[in-house]
Amino acid sequence: MHYGADYNPEQWPEETWPEDVARMREAGVTMVSLGIFAWSRIQPREGEFDFDWLDRVIDLLHEGGIAVDLATATASPPPWATAAYPEMLPQDEDGATYWPGSRQQFAPSSPVYRRLAGELVTAIAERYANHPAIVMWHVNNEYGCHLNADYSDAARDAFRRWLADRYGDIRSLNDAWGTDFWSQRYQSFDEVFPPRKAPYSRNPGQELDFRRFTSDMLLECYLMEREIIRAAGATQPITTNFMGAFKPADYAHWVRHLDLVSDDCYPDPNDPESFRAAAFQRDLARSLKPEVPWILMEQATNALNWRPTNAPKAPGQMAALSAQAIGRGADGVLFFQWRQSRAGSEKFHSAMLPHAGTETRTWREAVALGEALAALPELPAGTRDSRVALVFDWENWWAVEASDHPQNALDYVAVIQRWYRALHRRHVQVDLVPASRVGDGYDVAIAPLLYLVRETDAAALTSFVERGGHLLVGPFSDVVDELDRFRDGGFATQLGPLCGIRIEDFGALVPVDAAPGVPGERTAPVAGDG
Amino acid sequence: MHYGADYNPEQWPEETWPEDVARMREAGVTMVSLGIFAWSRIQPREGEFDFDWLDRVIDLLHEGGIAVDLATATASPPPWATAAYPEMLPQDEDGATYWPGSRQQFAPSSPVYRRLAGELVTAIAERYANHPAIVMWHVNNEYGCHLNADYSDAARDAFRRWLADRYGDIRSLNDAWGTDFWSQRYQSFDEVFPPRKAPYSRNPGQELDFRRFTSDMLLECYLMEREIIRAAGATQPITTNFMGAFKPADYAHWVRHLDLVSDDCYPDPNDPESFRAAAFQRDLARSLKPEVPWILMEQATNALNWRPTNAPKAPGQMAALSAQAIGRGADGVLFFQWRQSRAGSEKFHSAMLPHAGTETRTWREAVALGEALAALPELPAGTRDSRVALVFDWENWWAVEASDHPQNALDYVAVIQRWYRALHRRHVQVDLVPASRVGDGYDVAIAPLLYLVRETDAAALTSFVERGGHLLVGPFSDVVDELDRFRDGGFATQLGPLCGIRIEDFGALVPVDAAPGVPGERTAPVAGDG
Amino acid sequence: MHYGADYNPEQWPEETWPEDVARMREAGVTMVSLGIFAWSRIQPREGEFDFDWLDRVIDLLHEGGIAVDLATATASPPPWATAAYPEMLPQDEDGATYWPGSRQQFAPSSPVYRRLAGELVTAIAERYANHPAIVMWHVNNEYGCHLNADYSDAARDAFRRWLADRYGDIRSLNDAWGTDFWSQRYQSFDEVFPPRKAPYSRNPGQELDFRRFTSDMLLECYLMEREIIRAAGATQPITTNFMGAFKPADYAHWVRHLDLVSDDCYPDPNDPESFRAAAFQRDLARSLKPEVPWILMEQATNALNWRPTNAPKAPGQMAALSAQAIGRGADGVLFFQWRQSRAGSEKFHSAMLPHAGTETRTWREAVALGEALAALPELPAGTRDSRVALVFDWENWWAVEASDHPQNALDYVAVIQRWYRALHRRHVQVDLVPASRVGDGYDVAIAPLLYLVRETDAAALTSFVERGGHLLVGPFSDVVDELDRFRDGGFATQLGPLCGIRIEDFGALVPVDAAPGVPGERTAPVAGDG
Repeated sequence: MHYGADYNPEQWPEETWPEDVARMREAGVTMVSLGIFAWSRIQPREGEFDFDWLDRVIDLLHEGGIAVDLATATASPPPWATAAYPEMLPQDEDGATYWPGSRQQFAPSSPVYRRLAGELVTAIAERYANHPAIVMWHVNNEYGCHLNADYSDAARDAFRRWLADRYGDIRSLNDAWGTDFWSQRYQSFDEVFPPRKAPYSRNPGQELDFRRFTSDMLLECYLMEREIIRAAGATQPITTNFMGAFKPADYAHWVRHLDLVSDDCYPDPNDPESFRAAAFQRDLARSLKPEVPWILMEQATNALNWRPTNAPKAPGQMAALSAQAIGRGADGVLFFQWRQSRAGSEKFHSAMLPHAGTETRTWREAVALGEALAALPELPAGTRDSRVALVFDWENWWAVEASDHPQNALDYVAVIQRWYRALHRRHVQVDLVPASRVGDGYDVAIAPLLYLVRETDAAALTSFVERGGHLLVGPFSDVVDELDRFRDGGFATQLGPLCGIRIEDFGALVPVDAAPGVPGERTAPVAGDG
Repeated sequence: MHYGADYNPEQWPEETWPEDVARMREAGVTMVSLGIFAWSRIQPREGEFDFDWLDRVIDLLHEGGIAVDLATATASPPPWATAAYPEMLPQDEDGATYWPGSRQQFAPSSPVYRRLAGELVTAIAERYANHPAIVMWHVNNEYGCHLNADYSDAARDAFRRWLADRYGDIRSLNDAWGTDFWSQRYQSFDEVFPPRKAPYSRNPGQELDFRRFTSDMLLECYLMEREIIRAAGATQPITTNFMGAFKPADYAHWVRHLDLVSDDCYPDPNDPESFRAAAFQRDLARSLKPEVPWILMEQATNALNWRPTNAPKAPGQMAALSAQAIGRGADGVLFFQWRQSRAGSEKFHSAMLPHAGTETRTWREAVALGEALAALPELPAGTRDSRVALVFDWENWWAVEASDHPQNALDYVAVIQRWYRALHRRHVQVDLVPASRVGDGYDVAIAPLLYLVRETDAAALTSFVERGGHLLVGPFSDVVDELDRFRDGGFATQLGPLCGIRIEDFGALVPVDAAPGVPGERTAPVAGDG
Repeated sequence: MHYGADYNPEQWPEETWPEDVARMREAGVTMVSLGIFAWSRIQPREGEFDFDWLDRVIDLLHEGGIAVDLATATASPPPWATAAYPEMLPQDEDGATYWPGSRQQFAPSSPVYRRLAGELVTAIAERYANHPAIVMWHVNNEYGCHLNADYSDAARDAFRRWLADRYGDIRSLNDAWGTDFWSQRYQSFDEVFPPRKAPYSRNPGQELDFRRFTSDMLLECYLMEREIIRAAGATQPITTNFMGAFKPADYAHWVRHLDLVSDDCYPDPNDPESFRAAAFQRDLARSLKPEVPWILMEQATNALNWRPTNAPKAPGQMAALSAQAIGRGADGVLFFQWRQSRAGSEKFHSAMLPHAGTETRTWREAVALGEALAALPELPAGTRDSRVALVFDWENWWAVEASDHPQNALDYVAVIQRWYRALHRRHVQVDLVPASRVGDGYDVAIAPLLYLVRETDAAALTSFVERGGHLLVGPFSDVVDELDRFRDGGFATQLGPLCGIRIEDFGALVPVDAAPGVPGERTAPVAGDG
């Protein structure tokens, strides 16, 4: 059972470090994530690396018995990099540049960024691959969390290559996207752009492929780093921290390349129902790669800084949420961060060691949790005893929340979570899986919004039912193929016979939260919530 | 009586076309609008035209007895055009470019766009001017519907030329715009810009002229195409589809150049009062050119895709709205579109032939309407029996909704429609006309918001009253001249003597929807609504 | 006691000017602010000045006994300037340019703007420094009112120079901003940018310094003009018009460079509590430079144009607000503007002489006020008899409203004004001062939101208490140093011992206006409002 936090010693004078290690031992810390934002300290300028300080930190931790989850430090390029290579800066759909001064200021598809990141990771991996303190690798940080998409020229060029790889010839792309609608037929991949600002609604096929591309570009960054680490001879498990149901990255696709899932989770202490959303997130982390445990890589000891109003956690609330994670399969509980910062954007973000020191409730609770975790017996290996599969699928999320639908206010996660909450209230354990993973071992499968149905999805669900499984399919399901196109022969061509229904057309009810004066029906006969 | 739809055969394999024609005959279709978004198919690259497929479609329709309203296909330039000539892309007031991937991605004043559009229309017109299937020409499509204004450098250059034409010398422009306010005095037309993003409120004269310019640039595109069609020897009526009370284009000015008015109308099925707004739109189409019938060029058979929530039409609602159009002078009822698309932004937009086929309520209602229309007797020619003129004026719309007024939340159309609805509920037929068309034939004229009064307007209204007409003038009327300047001698200089009033100053009541805690008077003694 | 208005004779034919002077005398006008937006008339093109018309206006005023507050006319550069030097245009944080067509279209740090402004002011000052009509100089106009910040390349270059001046070496800047957080460590000032659009929350030190820089750039413009005027031999007092509690400019810092404070104030006639906010603004103007009187440089006789809804002033309301200003130390009452404009953005803004002429309530009230002021006896010189100091501090304002706080919806001025209103209702006279000015002469000092405490602030407050003063400190005080960094040793290190408290951590209550369904506590035990 790992216990610890992100550790950012570069923010503090070296005199502080021994005290840090002593306090970590006091709190029962077993592992820290080190160096996540240390690029500008490790590489003060291009071609020059400074590892002395990092050597000393790692040795100090190792001597203190604290294991290291070593970061690749590529999450925030240093000012010298973006000043020298402004073409690596991302842009929004209006063409506005995201400048330095915050973090994550890189276009994931930028060749320059990838070269610089690769050089950094090579240097780090070659130096520390065999250090006995290193027990895990932490690639980058929360890929894509602030930049849900990049529309720069780097993205444009990469998107064209990605499309050429996917479709081979432009005729196939035209067919896939239905470009005869609105005179969008392309003659060459060089005519295609990311879905930048346009006069009106953009091609849904282009939008869906751009989401796939965006997820893939981030994944390519991860894979490049992973390969460098392995090439350097490192044998420790490699991960990157997920953020639960995070729309831009198709974690269900990524997860095959992670040795273990790690997840960051920040429920709102002010919302008495947020523990259910946290449980949903734990179950997603657990379901993504059920054969190995997962780690709660980041949570807060107490209050945050980035919500409009940041309430403190109630006494015991942090321990309860930690226990929830362990109960749902977590093999580690870590925080952002070890020592509260004195400056910068997150100085009001709580930490294990608060700015006000150890005479604080936060510190006492951190120490108490460390003791409790240390006292835990060996927990049983993860079991796979969920009898209910709740279908959760990133490509459906993307397609459902595209524009130009009968109901354009659909919130995919909210719909899935309504089903999840109903089951959670009844203490029913569920797995959150794509349709293709519905099969033996489940009694019931629920597919609340399976708008996009691949043939493999249909085959898995059909087989499940034929072998005695109970399948519940929600409205607006089985509408399009994997390219967001209607199939020949009408709607519900894949699951309709299985369900015994035929669909003639779609019509939206008015939203349940419509203003009182707005006419229309308020509720459907059957609601998804419990 | 025309009956039909937009027909986009390029979205379907050629095998589908004969079935289309057969089904059209089954539904009683008499005419289709063809090729509106076919540019990328007709001209796959610059200098190369492919008319073979279009020849076959037109011949097939002609053989099937379906008349053709042939589009000029200029509404959505193909990707090769915008890739080769990015300077033809429009920009918003912040300088952000509107990229391809949707439709209408052209700057109306762009010389390149006009050259390319001209070449396309020339090729189409020369080929089909004398084809017996062609009974009407459909220029472009919904001019300006997504791009209410363009601030690109193409627009900048054209705006300067337009101003030089209008004012002759820069001194006149300075006088017209009152540029001595805030040190805006120009020395040359080359110093003038479109009203792009600015630190604060922009010159109202510049804003008003930019609206005139924007309408004129779109009109110039239309006129260029019209002249090419006529030059090719075509004798069929030429139109472009209007969108009711559409702010960017002064249809009252445009209409002299259209052989007949055609109008697109999409009332919200969920709004029980939307039939009144639809009636308003019919009456506007009818009033714009009362000497000829108009055509309902686009409506939906059932649900749409672009509202936040798109309810289906109730059974019979489509027929009722169609009958409303015919009752208010329409000589044709058409839909967007014939066959529901399988892909693209409007695949959920209903059509005559739904994706689910002919076993659908939508198809049955389309067939039933076709039968009903075919059974209609010859209708009487349009009569001009309205006794009430309700003044509706685009330049007033633009001026009233400019900034820096006593009341800055005025919605011009909402005010006019409140008067319209009061009359509609009382079954009073009204014409919607500019003030200059108020004259003999009316008993009553209502000018609810005649903020901007031209001398010709004042003369027409004065003459109307002097000859016994009853004139009702609403508040915030007779305030400025046609350049949005106060006239010498105070307010109400044109209609004040007629009305027996003098206006000392303006003061706004608080909005009627102000929050309960906000002080101020909630209602004026006399409200415009009935 | 000055009485008058902005006078913009360039908007009117010369025949109007003698009538203007006659009417001014009728209204009791003693002084007008002249030429604020006359740049394009004074300098029709680069290198060419036209002072003839201005000579005639000034002579005419002088002959009529009307004194002149002469403007430097730099507030709105003429079109020729921005057309020739587009690099002087400001940009927003997204890189979008602010174009001409409004006013204030200049980047304050632009070398070209400063050169052109300097040449203009030199010409004006040299010509009129000794003219007997000139009794005051009006530099620019409402510095920064529409452009709260500029992110252009001119700003970028100036910001780097400003930072190099402030910090000397880049190591000091890194320490000040805590750039080891998120890998922001700079190697040189040339890598620093203004806080332009970024992926996420920006460095708080960078933000705070950018606010200081923005205020300083505006101040540098003022100082340049002031020096030119003095260098020309002018001896009249020099001012620039403030706008009360205006966030972008630290008036408490500026005021040492003004001979007298002048203030523009536009309370909303529709808000029955706006007279309290007006009183707050009067007291701020009075407190900024208590040793000299201040002038109400702009108010409205009646309605405005720029609020969503612009109500007229009630009869007598203008006189009451004028009396309020005089009662709180004003030595003059002026309006924007003398004669209501016929065109331009502010034609609906009321003036002393309305568009409808002298047969208006507005004119009668303006005349009556002039008579009342003329009948006033000599008023006593300003006394300093406030017993209560309410701490108001621009850098605190900036720091408190930065992002990433426990409560991110804090409105600094609203909090201060709640305290002010409670005292105002009880008829308690207060001074609004920075903490460093709290001292002898006050019985009570209130520091509602002293988040940022400089050592000099702490020293002043400590000394005040030690000498018997009563100090009331509100929540979220004494949190950071002047660089927005936590101090060593926890929170409340400066005032904690004085107050007898220790602060362990911060937690936000939910906003009091949270929706009913949102959980959390609604009120703190002690509210700041009275």
